[in-house]
Amino acid sequence: MALDFTYRIQVPHRPGQLARVAGRIAEGEGLIGDVTTINVGREASIRELTVEVRDREHGQSVAKGLDELDGVRVLWAQDRALLRHEGGKLVVASTQPVRTVQDMRDVYTPGVARASMAISEDPSLASHLTMIGRSVAICTNGTRVLGLGDIGPVPSMPVMEGKAVFYHQLANVSAMPILIDTKDVDEFVETVKRIASGFGGIHLEDISAPECFEIERRLIEALPQPVMHDDVHGTAVVTLAAAIVACRHAGFSLEDAVVGQIGLGAAGFGIASLMVDGKAKRVVASDPNPLSHERARAKGIEVTTDMETVMKEADVVVATTGRAGLIKPETVRKGQVILALTNPYPEIDPEAAVAAGAAFAADGTSVNNVLGYPGIFRGALLAGAGEINLPMKLAAADAIADLTADADLVPDALDPNVHERVATAVRDAAVASGVAHLDRAPAGL
Amino acid sequence: MALDFTYRIQVPHRPGQLARVAGRIAEGEGLIGDVTTINVGREASIRELTVEVRDREHGQSVAKGLDELDGVRVLWAQDRALLRHEGGKLVVASTQPVRTVQDMRDVYTPGVARASMAISEDPSLASHLTMIGRSVAICTNGTRVLGLGDIGPVPSMPVMEGKAVFYHQLANVSAMPILIDTKDVDEFVETVKRIASGFGGIHLEDISAPECFEIERRLIEALPQPVMHDDVHGTAVVTLAAAIVACRHAGFSLEDAVVGQIGLGAAGFGIASLMVDGKAKRVVASDPNPLSHERARAKGIEVTTDMETVMKEADVVVATTGRAGLIKPETVRKGQVILALTNPYPEIDPEAAVAAGAAFAADGTSVNNVLGYPGIFRGALLAGAGEINLPMKLAAADAIADLTADADLVPDALDPNVHERVATAVRDAAVASGVAHLDRAPAGL
Repeated sequence: MALDFTYRIQVPHRPGQLARVAGRIAEGEGLIGDVTTINVGREASIRELTVEVRDREHGQSVAKGLDELDGVRVLWAQDRALLRHEGGKLVVASTQPVRTVQDMRDVYTPGVARASMAISEDPSLASHLTMIGRSVAICTNGTRVLGLGDIGPVPSMPVMEGKAVFYHQLANVSAMPILIDTKDVDEFVETVKRIASGFGGIHLEDISAPECFEIERRLIEALPQPVMHDDVHGTAVVTLAAAIVACRHAGFSLEDAVVGQIGLGAAGFGIASLMVDGKAKRVVASDPNPLSHERARAKGIEVTTDMETVMKEADVVVATTGRAGLIKPETVRKGQVILALTNPYPEIDPEAAVAAGAAFAADGTSVNNVLGYPGIFRGALLAGAGEINLPMKLAAADAIADLTADADLVPDALDPNVHERVATAVRDAAVASGVAHLDRAPAGL
Repeated sequence: MALDFTYRIQVPHRPGQLARVAGRIAEGEGLIGDVTTINVGREASIRELTVEVRDREHGQSVAKGLDELDGVRVLWAQDRALLRHEGGKLVVASTQPVRTVQDMRDVYTPGVARASMAISEDPSLASHLTMIGRSVAICTNGTRVLGLGDIGPVPSMPVMEGKAVFYHQLANVSAMPILIDTKDVDEFVETVKRIASGFGGIHLEDISAPECFEIERRLIEALPQPVMHDDVHGTAVVTLAAAIVACRHAGFSLEDAVVGQIGLGAAGFGIASLMVDGKAKRVVASDPNPLSHERARAKGIEVTTDMETVMKEADVVVATTGRAGLIKPETVRKGQVILALTNPYPEIDPEAAVAAGAAFAADGTSVNNVLGYPGIFRGALLAGAGEINLPMKLAAADAIADLTADADLVPDALDPNVHERVATAVRDAAVASGVAHLDRAPAGL
């Protein structure tokens, strides 16, 4: 897949130089994006160019081509995404600076002792006097990270930090990655239980199936705060929203549609289950692994090992297989909706699906769970809810669907208003379904 | 102990009103501090007054007195420290905003997959592409919080957040409180080991003795990153620095001084041990608990159960007993240095100690471990050090002592320059003592 390289180059400060550089990049088959002037000197200027290249080798070969130009020097060339990760993406910061000795006496000894004593006497004050009620632990063991598989806890950290970035920016929730270095279900559950009291919510992330199902079930049972495996439920909420919108576009309602789910891993099972609960007419699913079938049938999902059947019967096809290019264009039915969600390489390119007759198609970039989890957890925290139940998930999906502009499949994930609306819908659903504890609603959220 | 109450009051907007309010507060025996005007209307103005009161009851009685004044309304009255804690003191934030779809593709899919793959291929890149190398987990089970004792994990949270506030403000380190809900040593150690890979350092805090010693020892053995129990070593570093300065004031050097340590809990044992390592002439200690004696003797500390002996023999007395007023003024020797460190109520008031003949005296507010841990961990992280060894601790103590202005016992804890100098000394000591791994030095610290 293409990636963006950034080149910092020094060029003579004379007319025609950028044209010469751009020409060389074109010869090297790079596609130029942003050009930023870093510094202009008397003799030379320094610029940064972002160039779409095929892979790292291609990126380096473009750099070599530039370096050969007379008077041009490549100061450095780097994958733009890696540059953006330099130093990490999160900071744990104080909400207010400590400027004076009085401030210090308030936030630390002796003042802090009064806050601690107050909570010790009345535990419900923790939601007011600490960050706990507006915080989430993002817990993972790194056993199923994006489409990369079992890369382990530390390599998964950039993904966890990315999740937390959106929590902060879109929902004002303080989310901390917690890397848990075990593949054992008991150990994972015990570890989360022991550290859970410091967080208002537990967000499980990128844990492989089937372990993730048992981990989530046991933590939901054991803990007083909301627990949600985002790959199962967050993805399902956003996918349900997209499916509702897609059906609307196609002139029918989800209640009248047959939904086909290809792949019954964590995400696939979550989506198919929520489609059943969201009242799709039928839900038909395929997975080569027979171990996944029993769990699905218990949820009312029709199961087959044969994905061709799914492609034939479904009005809306959702694929979460981890296998790029699995869906052949010739199997696409005219008017079908295709959501091929495997990242970073989908089961079928949206363009190819539409060319093959699909009414709508999207990949995991647009049907992105960034649309779901920040507002879902914010809503649950605002409600002081002890869980994230089905009415809360359906309310989130409906809110996301309602916020989608006419021609789109989902709303803009970077619009804070979207997340606030989702949070409000989730909070209201928590209240209406009787799981809210508004006395636990935290300060500062 | 006195505490500060803040009163938000509405008063008629006419001359003489503040005088009337101040008079009533004086009648009620409150001591007025800051007065802030919140709002001025045509008929009435709203002001906030901070008043030092004896206790909460006194604070409420002052409010009642104000409310009885004609035309004055108390809108609310609250402990100032609790107000300052409203909503908690920390936020987990992104280092850079995500503004565009391109930003999103860089920090999340698909760009983030390249960062994860890069770390998977070369684990040392984690210190560059994640926050891990500039982060610390503040781990506690809340079994010995300040002078409050075993209040448990959640009530200890304000203290942990306070520690993290200083990490951020003074050392640019991202510190996250991790509340560990167990008193079992094995469970505590296992839990920290399982979550440790997400943090560059492990700061242990407010864990009761003797469990804390075994917990720290086992974690130091097991983990590749620096582990330090702040109540043992951080306090010891700052106390050693204060003792060095105090001896300098008194015209002798610590090498020639007898140090007396009253109390051999976590802090006391740490201080007495570092005094031995810091080359005090002799270290004499007392503790009623015979279980603490063996550990101390093994470190070369002379032990007695009789604190009078310590008061008689010591040139520098350090008390960390958790018992307010334990040191009677009549036992203070002329010219002695007294550091009575129990928070929030010291073993003897500094004023009373000086009145009784002490050359210098200080309590836990001035000999505050905020002076130590931020720079110590920053220095260790900057060095990529695998541990915090004795040379690093002694270097920190010397740096703090050297930074102390003439008449003081310790430098200003809110001066960022102090912490930078401590960090540099610690990093240099790590390099000189061969425990630095500069290739692991993190980006963004």
